Amino acid sequence: MNKPREFDPSVVAELRALLGERVSTASAVREHHGKDESYFPYAPPDAVVFPRSTDEVRDIVNVLRRHRVPMIPYGVGTSLEGHVLAVRGGVCIDLSQMNRVLAVHEADLDAVVEAGVTRKQLNEHIKHTGLFFPVDPGADATLGGMAATRASGTNAVRYGTMRENVLALKVVLADGRVIQTARRAKKSAAGYDLTRLFVGSEGTLGIITEVTVRLYPVQEAMSAAVCAFATVDGCTNTVIQTIQAGVPIARSEIVCENTIAAINRYKKTAYRVAPTVFFEFHGSSASVVEQAETVQAIAKENGGMDFQWATRPEERSQLWEARHHAYFACLQLRPGARAISTDVCVPISRLAECVRETMEDVKHYIAPVPLLGHIGDGNFHLMFLVDPARPEELELAKQFNRRLVERALRMEGTCTGEHGVGMGKIDSMRRELGEDAVALMAEIKRTLDPHNLMNPGKVVPAELLA
Amino acid sequence: MNKPREFDPSVVAELRALLGERVSTASAVREHHGKDESYFPYAPPDAVVFPRSTDEVRDIVNVLRRHRVPMIPYGVGTSLEGHVLAVRGGVCIDLSQMNRVLAVHEADLDAVVEAGVTRKQLNEHIKHTGLFFPVDPGADATLGGMAATRASGTNAVRYGTMRENVLALKVVLADGRVIQTARRAKKSAAGYDLTRLFVGSEGTLGIITEVTVRLYPVQEAMSAAVCAFATVDGCTNTVIQTIQAGVPIARSEIVCENTIAAINRYKKTAYRVAPTVFFEFHGSSASVVEQAETVQAIAKENGGMDFQWATRPEERSQLWEARHHAYFACLQLRPGARAISTDVCVPISRLAECVRETMEDVKHYIAPVPLLGHIGDGNFHLMFLVDPARPEELELAKQFNRRLVERALRMEGTCTGEHGVGMGKIDSMRRELGEDAVALMAEIKRTLDPHNLMNPGKVVPAELLA
Repeated sequence: MNKPREFDPSVVAELRALLGERVSTASAVREHHGKDESYFPYAPPDAVVFPRSTDEVRDIVNVLRRHRVPMIPYGVGTSLEGHVLAVRGGVCIDLSQMNRVLAVHEADLDAVVEAGVTRKQLNEHIKHTGLFFPVDPGADATLGGMAATRASGTNAVRYGTMRENVLALKVVLADGRVIQTARRAKKSAAGYDLTRLFVGSEGTLGIITEVTVRLYPVQEAMSAAVCAFATVDGCTNTVIQTIQAGVPIARSEIVCENTIAAINRYKKTAYRVAPTVFFEFHGSSASVVEQAETVQAIAKENGGMDFQWATRPEERSQLWEARHHAYFACLQLRPGARAISTDVCVPISRLAECVRETMEDVKHYIAPVPLLGHIGDGNFHLMFLVDPARPEELELAKQFNRRLVERALRMEGTCTGEHGVGMGKIDSMRRELGEDAVALMAEIKRTLDPHNLMNPGKVVPAELLA
Repeated sequence: MNKPREFDPSVVAELRALLGERVSTASAVREHHGKDESYFPYAPPDAVVFPRSTDEVRDIVNVLRRHRVPMIPYGVGTSLEGHVLAVRGGVCIDLSQMNRVLAVHEADLDAVVEAGVTRKQLNEHIKHTGLFFPVDPGADATLGGMAATRASGTNAVRYGTMRENVLALKVVLADGRVIQTARRAKKSAAGYDLTRLFVGSEGTLGIITEVTVRLYPVQEAMSAAVCAFATVDGCTNTVIQTIQAGVPIARSEIVCENTIAAINRYKKTAYRVAPTVFFEFHGSSASVVEQAETVQAIAKENGGMDFQWATRPEERSQLWEARHHAYFACLQLRPGARAISTDVCVPISRLAECVRETMEDVKHYIAPVPLLGHIGDGNFHLMFLVDPARPEELELAKQFNRRLVERALRMEGTCTGEHGVGMGKIDSMRRELGEDAVALMAEIKRTLDPHNLMNPGKVVPAELLA
């Protein structure tokens, strides 16, 4: 973890000249920045810098490029595929001190924030406006990190992912140029979609320093409910039929009985231990009642039991906190374990089949395998709990994941609905999109980052950049 | 128009070997393909080919690349910024014979079509399914062309533009590789967003041959209404307040009194001659009633007069046909004229101000200047009617447009909300996004199309490719 590496002291000296105390080579700081929530071995950077402005990021990039030092942007380190690991050393650019909300345009339903602002911070900041920002990965991630990984979460079924909710970005390119990818107009046909080029590029094409995001009016009524089902099939079929009926459902989250048991233990809740869907409905009071009635009828036909409602804000928060903490709750199913989280997303018509075959398969894993997911989008996660001291467990979990990815691809799905490629999904992405499409990504990468300094080892297969 | 050009006869011979009769050098065919709906002078290609499959497109591209001949993809020729003009000669690739709907996945709410399928053809094809495809530029454009220009239309305020509604593309690259940009999963974080790279690339990065689009359930109730206002400000304020109230309005289209008079004359309708908003509400019956009540109350406070309702499908069709034909109706305000259509889009908080200043300015134009637009998105069009025989009129209209673009940019807007860049908006785009962002587009263009053969002269400034 602390293996010595040759690192040019003049780089640190130049960075200190720019940033003073905001450069660290302390091993605790480096180690903290050399891991994320994934199962990959730690890979600490040689130094960590804490810029406070786009200009400082540009100056850092210019120093590092001149010295041919890798640079890894960092938000809060909650990614799941090794995105922030300094696998070739280099300098971690921690953007957490760029945490100002620069502008909230209430009338336009947008906000401009620095990359280090977290989703909860933004929502706290705009609470008084009657608006909210919907994209909610489990962790309280930064908006820069969420844009970089094309994150989504429980609201995506209605409000979309970061792909739909980023209006514009400020980006520092590898050669030090700073671009604004778009203006604040809600739509534009002005040239290539540079915004979407960087959304999901995982720090490999440039460093996002500002994000303009869309906001939404808090609806008059928001009601959440939990419904247990006899089977996982009952859950998936209910949500499929709900969407096909045109109900503008705001959230529809599945958890299996393993997950709900873990939540009960971790959160001291008392949900029935059965495959369960967490629903949320947004709209006018009348519309929410109507949506709820439609969905209850559909659920009933699919073996759904009673709906447990949460309508007061604090009840709703509790309910969604339970769901958002499912990942951490499940980790406790096997204390000391780390999780390999799968992330396939399939066309919804194949979801029931995909989940069914998968649950059958994972019966043979060495531990319970909790399932949780955004079924309205066809996206679900399994958590393979592995003992990090036992490489054979990691290998076994990876075999299950490979089979799952193959299954999803056979069903015209994707290997990653929202976690991104990082280091963990590079081969899966090649199988998904084919060599020519991935080669095109490599050509774009070489164009924007000819020395392969921007978060090297992620997204694009290394041999295509040699 | 028919100026002789050196064109290597062996190219035509090679194309004929591939396509037989489906290669034309007839001057009527070439002229037909050398113009769009814009004011630009005709620029016919040297030949036109009519492929019927992606493989044929690939073979054509390989022949043309080998001979260094420009290639211009063509749908139905309804673009407004000179997108299809063969300004450097070359071969027009007319995709209209690739017009098969390849798959409709009702349960997944998507369809896969060849690039030459038009939006009306698709909607006719899926009529029995209870689904529809919402994106509707005025013309019955092809889905390939709509993807290439990032088109939108009247439904975008609720359903998004082609940016949001294309799930995946099949694209023939300049070097003959064929890629599928994504699979059918509703969301994916698998690598760079190649889909969005080609959506809006206007044929300059590759030739789109297949499009996977999102479909939506036809809602239980769909009601349209027309409401006249005392002032244009009344129209814009009504729509702004509607959106801020969180009403999920499906359409909100403004026309000024000039436009409504033109529509009345062209369509034999009898709408009150005043600034008018065309609304549409989608949802359950109860929800539509509720939405309509909210909007009527807002309209009343802003000087709106009575709502004229259209609820039966044929009435709704008539109403929207009137709106969709507004462009052609306005052309008749000055017979023989061609139109320069503006396309700015601003943050909605600036819309009223932008429209007001603009209407004041255009009072000084030589003819009435109709206004129509998608105000829910902040996007509106003015039509400057020019006599093509009088270049001074064209120059005058361009001056007005330049002032309008500057005004929109000052308000953080875009020069083009939906028409695209083509030949007409290149300089505006540079002012909008800055030299570094446009230089990045040029670098991407050079990477994908090193010989500048894919629709040359469009989007990217020529001198950046020299």
